[in-house]
Amino acid sequence: MKILIAGGDGFCGWPTALYLSQKGHEVVIIDSLIRRQWDNELHSNSLTPISSLNERVSRWHELTGRTLKTYIGDLTHYDFLRIVLEETQPDTFVHFAEQRSAPYSMIDREHAVFTQSNNVIGTLNVLYGLKEIAPDCHLIKLGTMGEYGTPNIDIEEGYLTIRHNNREDILPYPKQPGSMYHLSKVHDSHNIMFACQAWGLRATDLNQGVVYGLHTGETMMDPVLINRLDYDAVFGTVLNRFLIQAAIGHDLTIYGAGGQTRGFINIIDTVRCIEIATINPAHPGDFRVFNQFTEEFSVLDLAEKVKNVATEEGINAVIRHLPNPRTEKEEHYYRANNTKLRDLGLEPHLLNQQVLRAILHTVNRYKDRAHLRNVLPAVSWK
Amino acid sequence: MKILIAGGDGFCGWPTALYLSQKGHEVVIIDSLIRRQWDNELHSNSLTPISSLNERVSRWHELTGRTLKTYIGDLTHYDFLRIVLEETQPDTFVHFAEQRSAPYSMIDREHAVFTQSNNVIGTLNVLYGLKEIAPDCHLIKLGTMGEYGTPNIDIEEGYLTIRHNNREDILPYPKQPGSMYHLSKVHDSHNIMFACQAWGLRATDLNQGVVYGLHTGETMMDPVLINRLDYDAVFGTVLNRFLIQAAIGHDLTIYGAGGQTRGFINIIDTVRCIEIATINPAHPGDFRVFNQFTEEFSVLDLAEKVKNVATEEGINAVIRHLPNPRTEKEEHYYRANNTKLRDLGLEPHLLNQQVLRAILHTVNRYKDRAHLRNVLPAVSWK
Repeated sequence: MKILIAGGDGFCGWPTALYLSQKGHEVVIIDSLIRRQWDNELHSNSLTPISSLNERVSRWHELTGRTLKTYIGDLTHYDFLRIVLEETQPDTFVHFAEQRSAPYSMIDREHAVFTQSNNVIGTLNVLYGLKEIAPDCHLIKLGTMGEYGTPNIDIEEGYLTIRHNNREDILPYPKQPGSMYHLSKVHDSHNIMFACQAWGLRATDLNQGVVYGLHTGETMMDPVLINRLDYDAVFGTVLNRFLIQAAIGHDLTIYGAGGQTRGFINIIDTVRCIEIATINPAHPGDFRVFNQFTEEFSVLDLAEKVKNVATEEGINAVIRHLPNPRTEKEEHYYRANNTKLRDLGLEPHLLNQQVLRAILHTVNRYKDRAHLRNVLPAVSWK
Repeated sequence: MKILIAGGDGFCGWPTALYLSQKGHEVVIIDSLIRRQWDNELHSNSLTPISSLNERVSRWHELTGRTLKTYIGDLTHYDFLRIVLEETQPDTFVHFAEQRSAPYSMIDREHAVFTQSNNVIGTLNVLYGLKEIAPDCHLIKLGTMGEYGTPNIDIEEGYLTIRHNNREDILPYPKQPGSMYHLSKVHDSHNIMFACQAWGLRATDLNQGVVYGLHTGETMMDPVLINRLDYDAVFGTVLNRFLIQAAIGHDLTIYGAGGQTRGFINIIDTVRCIEIATINPAHPGDFRVFNQFTEEFSVLDLAEKVKNVATEEGINAVIRHLPNPRTEKEEHYYRANNTKLRDLGLEPHLLNQQVLRAILHTVNRYKDRAHLRNVLPAVSWK
């Protein structure tokens, strides 16, 4: 299949591009490279030394003989997107190309407006581009489990059968997003649902949990192919961040009580989920929602797991509770369904001591690259 | 009270400004005057000859001695909004200042992107402006009943108690908006709800039905104060449009079967609802939702009511069914709650023959100003 991957230079996009290329698909990458600029803006960096996109795709070609065509540009520029779609005529459009950090969106008004306009207008352009140029193309859009918030009832996959006053309907699951970023994803979901209904587009919204790990079989083939790894309080996600904090001798910093429970997924499963969605496309007119995570953990659970593995490795990791910079419940009910991807063949790689140890070993190799001042949260929701 | 009215030159905003001024409040108008530019873009016009905003506020001052201060500028320009908020320090911010036409938002990609970015970013700026400068100010935001779509269960006011797998929660009512414009209002609602929870702002979201009529006690005081009236297929709303079609000898054009049922409200009640929300503000941290309509009618019902009144007035009005340019159900369940505003004192002005006849008489006076080519729908959802 011909697969366009928007955001194909990023943390999820790059390993997905390699995985699908290795599986024999014709993969084309779109990326604005803006994620690398945000490192400069925040005076931060990937813990792992990442090569340029050109170096990456050249090495991939040398190693495998496979070509990854690249287009450097931004989805908010419709004329650019139009050309890419016309030249590519993709079967699948995988859309990772959004600002994906909640703290980044909460820095100030400018970052909130940037996040919502970048994400919402980029996705609107994708919808209009598909309608105009590739109406049969399957859109696979990365959403987030954070769209649902933490309701006091079970979270279903996108839709909920509701009985009310002796009548019944299947309605979009109510959303309670907790940051300007999460809100942008909810806006996207509504826009995509409408485009499927009005124009007959086909889309899969993948509400992904927190991703951990960094390596896949492909990114490990060569140092030039290594994936980025974020440890800072703006872009670093919780489990990876704890492992890096342990490696650099920093306290494991929990926001508030640590009872916040979320869905998690190994990056190895992320790339497989994209493949599953690709080879099992939504039907024309369908807006399909999959919850893309494999296990649920509380933040405190994870800190303790990391502390245990660190201890075995001779590291004395201390768990420290910080005042919560976010507005969120610290103790709450959480139970989310995630059967649809498993029904289509996902065999989850679960989190165990061995997995944690492997990430810790990788992290340890690059720990001197970390800037300590980036580790503690500087962005508040208030 | 000091009340800022954004969009105070528009169809709802202007009569609201006069009504609240007449009630003794200190009213300040913000408007970009862009609605008047859209008339130029669409080669259309208000059926009634409207004066400039300067002429309007001068005449109001001559007639009543009351001052309406005006700021001409756009909510998407934060520096402008900041100055207005600092100089005004309002108790209430009434936000009508959005692109409010579903067909306009569906013209093409550019109009969809304009509508969503204009509405969403304008409202984000209002939220950040209130947070920064007037955190105790009560935001009254105009939403639309169209945010809910046409679910097969009763529509509640903003929230729904949901029982699921033996657990229960009160969650935001699921939204199924049917155009790029309606989607923008849903995005706004989510953004405002978050701002109330995270920052303790106070807001009332008024999900308004289709407004009909044009006169209020204040706009009728002088020809210079007359309200605008839209009859074109882009900005004209259904009941007003039928009355104007009858007056100019055009068929009453129904989209599809005409079973589409919606909530309706007289402009006289709109201005009273804003007053009710103003003098009964939401509590800090509360995101309150009122459904602002007084009666439900199907489109076919309304066409028949107009036809009957027209016949009495010696006009032979013909009902014609057009292919539906929209994507919507033409026969569906519809029952929406609207008790919250009545509980706070709204005494609805219901639709009857006398009301229809009065609008028809006004319309008749200005019918020669209508451009016939603007009456039939030219914008399709497909």
